[in-house]
Amino acid sequence: MTNILVVHGPNLNMLGLREPEIYGRTTLDEINKSLLEISRIRGAELRIVQSNHEGLLVDAVQEARTWAHGIVVNAGGLTHTSVALRDALSAVALPFVEVHLSNIFKREAFRQHSFLSDVALGVVCGFGWRSYGIGLNGLLDVIISI
Amino acid sequence: MTNILVVHGPNLNMLGLREPEIYGRTTLDEINKSLLEISRIRGAELRIVQSNHEGLLVDAVQEARTWAHGIVVNAGGLTHTSVALRDALSAVALPFVEVHLSNIFKREAFRQHSFLSDVALGVVCGFGWRSYGIGLNGLLDVIISI
Amino acid sequence: MTNILVVHGPNLNMLGLREPEIYGRTTLDEINKSLLEISRIRGAELRIVQSNHEGLLVDAVQEARTWAHGIVVNAGGLTHTSVALRDALSAVALPFVEVHLSNIFKREAFRQHSFLSDVALGVVCGFGWRSYGIGLNGLLDVIISI
Amino acid sequence: MTNILVVHGPNLNMLGLREPEIYGRTTLDEINKSLLEISRIRGAELRIVQSNHEGLLVDAVQEARTWAHGIVVNAGGLTHTSVALRDALSAVALPFVEVHLSNIFKREAFRQHSFLSDVALGVVCGFGWRSYGIGLNGLLDVIISI
Amino acid sequence: MTNILVVHGPNLNMLGLREPEIYGRTTLDEINKSLLEISRIRGAELRIVQSNHEGLLVDAVQEARTWAHGIVVNAGGLTHTSVALRDALSAVALPFVEVHLSNIFKREAFRQHSFLSDVALGVVCGFGWRSYGIGLNGLLDVIISI
Amino acid sequence: MTNILVVHGPNLNMLGLREPEIYGRTTLDEINKSLLEISRIRGAELRIVQSNHEGLLVDAVQEARTWAHGIVVNAGGLTHTSVALRDALSAVALPFVEVHLSNIFKREAFRQHSFLSDVALGVVCGFGWRSYGIGLNGLLDVIISI
Amino acid sequence: MTNILVVHGPNLNMLGLREPEIYGRTTLDEINKSLLEISRIRGAELRIVQSNHEGLLVDAVQEARTWAHGIVVNAGGLTHTSVALRDALSAVALPFVEVHLSNIFKREAFRQHSFLSDVALGVVCGFGWRSYGIGLNGLLDVIISI
Amino acid sequence: MTNILVVHGPNLNMLGLREPEIYGRTTLDEINKSLLEISRIRGAELRIVQSNHEGLLVDAVQEARTWAHGIVVNAGGLTHTSVALRDALSAVALPFVEVHLSNIFKREAFRQHSFLSDVALGVVCGFGWRSYGIGLNGLLDVIISI
Amino acid sequence: MTNILVVHGPNLNMLGLREPEIYGRTTLDEINKSLLEISRIRGAELRIVQSNHEGLLVDAVQEARTWAHGIVVNAGGLTHTSVALRDALSAVALPFVEVHLSNIFKREAFRQHSFLSDVALGVVCGFGWRSYGIGLNGLLDVIISI
Amino acid sequence: MTNILVVHGPNLNMLGLREPEIYGRTTLDEINKSLLEISRIRGAELRIVQSNHEGLLVDAVQEARTWAHGIVVNAGGLTHTSVALRDALSAVALPFVEVHLSNIFKREAFRQHSFLSDVALGVVCGFGWRSYGIGLNGLLDVIISI
Amino acid sequence: MTNILVVHGPNLNMLGLREPEIYGRTTLDEINKSLLEISRIRGAELRIVQSNHEGLLVDAVQEARTWAHGIVVNAGGLTHTSVALRDALSAVALPFVEVHLSNIFKREAFRQHSFLSDVALGVVCGFGWRSYGIGLNGLLDVIISI
Amino acid sequence: MTNILVVHGPNLNMLGLREPEIYGRTTLDEINKSLLEISRIRGAELRIVQSNHEGLLVDAVQEARTWAHGIVVNAGGLTHTSVALRDALSAVALPFVEVHLSNIFKREAFRQHSFLSDVALGVVCGFGWRSYGIGLNGLLDVIISI
Repeated sequence: MTNILVVHGPNLNMLGLREPEIYGRTTLDEINKSLLEISRIRGAELRIVQSNHEGLLVDAVQEARTWAHGIVVNAGGLTHTSVALRDALSAVALPFVEVHLSNIFKREAFRQHSFLSDVALGVVCGFGWRSYGIGLNGLLDVIISI
Repeated sequence: MTNILVVHGPNLNMLGLREPEIYGRTTLDEINKSLLEISRIRGAELRIVQSNHEGLLVDAVQEARTWAHGIVVNAGGLTHTSVALRDALSAVALPFVEVHLSNIFKREAFRQHSFLSDVALGVVCGFGWRSYGIGLNGLLDVIISI
Repeated sequence: MTNILVVHGPNLNMLGLREPEIYGRTTLDEINKSLLEISRIRGAELRIVQSNHEGLLVDAVQEARTWAHGIVVNAGGLTHTSVALRDALSAVALPFVEVHLSNIFKREAFRQHSFLSDVALGVVCGFGWRSYGIGLNGLLDVIISI
Repeated sequence: MTNILVVHGPNLNMLGLREPEIYGRTTLDEINKSLLEISRIRGAELRIVQSNHEGLLVDAVQEARTWAHGIVVNAGGLTHTSVALRDALSAVALPFVEVHLSNIFKREAFRQHSFLSDVALGVVCGFGWRSYGIGLNGLLDVIISI
Repeated sequence: MTNILVVHGPNLNMLGLREPEIYGRTTLDEINKSLLEISRIRGAELRIVQSNHEGLLVDAVQEARTWAHGIVVNAGGLTHTSVALRDALSAVALPFVEVHLSNIFKREAFRQHSFLSDVALGVVCGFGWRSYGIGLNGLLDVIISI
Repeated sequence: MTNILVVHGPNLNMLGLREPEIYGRTTLDEINKSLLEISRIRGAELRIVQSNHEGLLVDAVQEARTWAHGIVVNAGGLTHTSVALRDALSAVALPFVEVHLSNIFKREAFRQHSFLSDVALGVVCGFGWRSYGIGLNGLLDVIISI
Repeated sequence: MTNILVVHGPNLNMLGLREPEIYGRTTLDEINKSLLEISRIRGAELRIVQSNHEGLLVDAVQEARTWAHGIVVNAGGLTHTSVALRDALSAVALPFVEVHLSNIFKREAFRQHSFLSDVALGVVCGFGWRSYGIGLNGLLDVIISI
Repeated sequence: MTNILVVHGPNLNMLGLREPEIYGRTTLDEINKSLLEISRIRGAELRIVQSNHEGLLVDAVQEARTWAHGIVVNAGGLTHTSVALRDALSAVALPFVEVHLSNIFKREAFRQHSFLSDVALGVVCGFGWRSYGIGLNGLLDVIISI
Repeated sequence: MTNILVVHGPNLNMLGLREPEIYGRTTLDEINKSLLEISRIRGAELRIVQSNHEGLLVDAVQEARTWAHGIVVNAGGLTHTSVALRDALSAVALPFVEVHLSNIFKREAFRQHSFLSDVALGVVCGFGWRSYGIGLNGLLDVIISI
Repeated sequence: MTNILVVHGPNLNMLGLREPEIYGRTTLDEINKSLLEISRIRGAELRIVQSNHEGLLVDAVQEARTWAHGIVVNAGGLTHTSVALRDALSAVALPFVEVHLSNIFKREAFRQHSFLSDVALGVVCGFGWRSYGIGLNGLLDVIISI
Repeated sequence: MTNILVVHGPNLNMLGLREPEIYGRTTLDEINKSLLEISRIRGAELRIVQSNHEGLLVDAVQEARTWAHGIVVNAGGLTHTSVALRDALSAVALPFVEVHLSNIFKREAFRQHSFLSDVALGVVCGFGWRSYGIGLNGLLDVIISI
Repeated sequence: MTNILVVHGPNLNMLGLREPEIYGRTTLDEINKSLLEISRIRGAELRIVQSNHEGLLVDAVQEARTWAHGIVVNAGGLTHTSVALRDALSAVALPFVEVHLSNIFKREAFRQHSFLSDVALGVVCGFGWRSYGIGLNGLLDVIISI
């Protein structure tokens, strides 16, 4: 059994409500359901965390060290500002995939630097809510192939 | 009735004690009282939150979506570092005014970039504790005129 | 009696006509009337100058040294280019408030540096024509409190 | 039937031989076979082009305007230098996905700017040879859902 | 009848005398005569202003709002420093062409940024005194075609 | 007889089809016809080349050394990236005019640096399809006057 | 009696487990024990806090104002991103020493700027777990000598 | 007889009154007297102009072309912003000396770039009111020696 | 037998004709002859390619993988712009020497960055046509000594 | 027996006399005595060199290769400018500690880059004359523990 | 009696021989004689040092602390690179004047930053060999006036 | 007879001992012997100097003016920091070749700027100890051909 942590950062609980011209109208619940469906099909186990608190996300990543085989993370605004989250992801030494709903390269300059990308396994962005599923599938492919 | 959220970021609970040559000797309680007096006169309702935790401030801003018509925010040090708070303010799509007690343009270079200003309605800085009242009055003027 | 100089820089005589999606439809006359009304209420005396000529604005600021207690200034395009105006404002050593109708942080990069801000008492921007009144009120509050 | 152009830029014909510690040991033929298998399953039609000549790639993208519904592109070194290829992709106005085998954010600074990303639908990188399949599946999902 | 304002900025009254290896030996009078000849042929009306005073140029541009259909401007040194002139040109909302005698891209770095170019209709430089006529003809072509 | 080479760079064969809100609806054929008409009137001989291949453009410029008196060049995306084309234009030591349909100063930052401008005779941009004719006329004026 | 607060930032609870080639194999417990031993010998009182939550660290620093004479701080990833923590340390106006286990000057560029250093008394880095003891001893020397 | 133009830029009429800790307590009149005394001794003729208007200074410099052998200029705030003044000084092709009362290298960053220095004969700064006399003497030495 | 590929980039076919004050009057044929003479003396085999087409140069470098022991390359303008050529040289994993006729450090800023240097064995520039022979001899020395 | 070289760079012979508000009133002799006392207690042997000559410091570091186990270095102004000293310290391959009396992060920008830090074992700054002793103790701890 | 140290940095012993188009044909001996003449007239005592060794210049400046009232310094190439010399000049706390023969603002970019200017009393450049005398006279004026 | 000065900068006396993975195992003596052998064969006379003292190297270069026809220089760490050495090499106006053992473009960013290159005849780097011989041969070729 492959265990995966899915991390949703600040404001992703607002999906569907928040700036739908950028982020679309799919809610976080709907995304989570689609991820659980993928994991069911592929025989993986998911745990999902969303928080607006950097500290809670760091705690969750640290804990993953004892049970998970990989992480899918959309750190929201923390992507561009949190060395603490980067360090947690490096500290647990698990392969992780960074995903973004929007194509961050079309947006403000400050969104085009991520503190996570250069320690990630891979990056997926721009496919809307589908970015999560694409990233999860890719992560499972790589973990299973190792 | 116009409902306004007032957000005080990290270390503003130290006002009056903290570096008075920069921030003055008025305490946060005194500022809050003066804001409540203004809102009483103008027939507005205030809710006030102070926290040193970015996550709690993001939570508070998100909740404001259901009851407030505008926000006055002094994000303290998070002004210069928090994309998460910026995203929360954009997500709730309420007009907000950014205020600072000190004139940030007289200070360290890193204080001269704000992650909030370009999504704010307006900015007020440099009037000491009066910046809050000036910003609140300005916000009410605009909201009422819409 | 508190005496205040109000300085309008280049192109502000075009207000109401000029790019109304940025600057609104209120004319400079209407703004000046609202400022005179505020000063009447608060017992202050205003003198108002508008010019497209940097030199005339510098002259006006220098003269204020002999009669004024403070200055409200919207230097228009000179905000971003005039060290001479900055030096005049420093030379007269009067408290002054910098105002802008638009939120300059939403606009071109070159509008986000002001040669005036770091020698100003305070800055107000983004409230449209109301920025002037907000700035004048704030300046009077501070002058009277000294 | 959905028609897709797959574009391989300079030096990708060397895959398997070239710096395997960065690019892996899978050859371009093997990647192409896996993409054809995916397209067969999903009922799409692929045309595949590889060239070391920027001009031929621009020609191929321009032609796609008449028959394709989307493009998967790994422009190799041209990713970082070719405005001509970017302009061709914009000119044909088809949704396209940019893929990279390696995680470009772990590599030289010059590889971290792409002339394609901000006009792409989405970006996938870091999954080795699987990046292509992940990108193709994502592109098909989006095209079919439109 | 098409009415055109021609604006000559600081030091252009020195043409013919000033650094002829850069600016050539044609005088401003000769240029103006050639422009009047072009306008006569094409049935346009010219008004021509030269000043070393930014304020007078701003005044002239503002006035053009009431009578002109377009502007040809060589702002001289103000090209690189005057936001006030840029704002005046934006405020009157007339199509204008920016011209330079010399090829500014061959000169000092500070001459390679213009505050006018990105709000201009078009730019012509490097043809010596002919740049004016080329720019005027181009402006008339576009205005007449609208 | 004056002989002129006209060089059209990558993607200019797409004119009329490509992003018409930027480049207009005139096709390259129509532009070429208008240039041939101008040259007929002025007694000049044109040769016209369009290619998406930098190498072919370099070859064409090199050959011009033996027969041409000047060059009109719109290098498309190569404007911003090709030192090879710049070097070819310098190597043949013919006067050339750089033209652009769009006003490149209104566009992405990377389009505001040209590798050609500082070795060109002059630059014309922003007049749409008319930029070519304006540039050709200007070049002929200068060549004939020498 | 001299009272000292020791602050451990995010991910320092992972010491010994986390990237031992950078941070060594000593655990946080072992470091804390060595600090308590030093304080016992020198007659000082320590309180120690570790958190992955910036807000809790700010709270702890604010409280130190009422009982501590100095602070030893390793802010982990927050070193490079937290103005809030910097402001808290300035607000309490206690002498503090910044310590790092690794030599941050050998690491990623973003780790070479600290928001704490220029308001610190002193900085110690690169001695592994010994950096804490070295910093504590230095801080005590200075406090006692005052 | 050697004829010299002395140019005083904006705000220098405020000398003695303006920020005396930077500019000293000597008035412009006193400086002018000392310069006239120097010129009397050395057999030179001075004309002196002060203005807050860039345009008037440009006019004055242009006129100097017909009668002066050199210029001493303290352009005040225009030093750092006026390409027009620089161009006027280049246009008249007279040797000129740039002087500053204060040591501009001790001051704000924006005061450390001068648009005049690289076209000046020489630069003198930091000697207070004596800078003028030092510069005038130096200029006369060089002019006489030619 | 040691086999060496010599690569001449764009515009080097113009040597002798092109800007002789920079590149000298020796033709490419003469350079090639001198290289063949050196290789004859040292018992090496040369193949020589010149092209104005980046793609052909990439093809030639890729082919060298099967027969050559080293490469001498003067990539002309592509030196500063071609990641594709760099990647080809890295992909074939042969020692190569980068040569330039002119001293590139005396020239335009953009010529002072090479995409090849940091993956080259060594660099030789500034010796005119002799740079090639110096580079070839150096490469042979190193290859033979391995 | 552990042998340590202590290196004092330019102007440190002025300690006690030089800018005491920055560097304190302790003389270099007093510092050296305190270091000798520490080394006596810990059973180490010190050799101490001070020079204003970069070359002598490089010589001294090179010689240390034959007798020392570590180095304590305060390179004074050479910290920020001497690649030669950095190279000497790398060449001898001994662990060394960089110390500064002042907190260099509170000072001019140019003092915040050190050519030594990233090849040092560790860095200590801001403790005044105590920085030396703190650094020496730390170095001995590490050397003895190896 | 006023005592002055004159410091000539590296390569100034070559004056008259070295690049006379930049530095003129006057030798260092002739300059020194003119300075001795000035000091004789004004009743000052000079000591003069020239060295190509930074260390010797630092030594000389340090010694000046015991006998001199001011320093005239042309540090040659060390102007742009020597923090050690800057620190020595700050350490002795004597007023000093920085002089340059050439106008450094007309030269390479690296010559436009001086490590001495912002701690100098004043700066004189561009008057050729006269810069020394101008600087010495200015320094004496200021010292005597104190 | 051709006379050549060979200059070895700081730390090159450590060759063979120092970081052999970068600089190789050949000693300076061995390099000097190979250079003397080359000069014997080609009928040239060498003088060789090595010093860790910038001042001595400047002295040696200055003296070369009276006897040498060219210079081969590896300035070690001074390459990147010494304007004084650059000025000496310019002052003597002899052709010189800059050599480096390592490929400096593969190393730290600060090693990629040389103060010597743009005044050198040519540059050779990356061939290990052979760089010297390659540079000397190239220099002799050019000197003899003049």
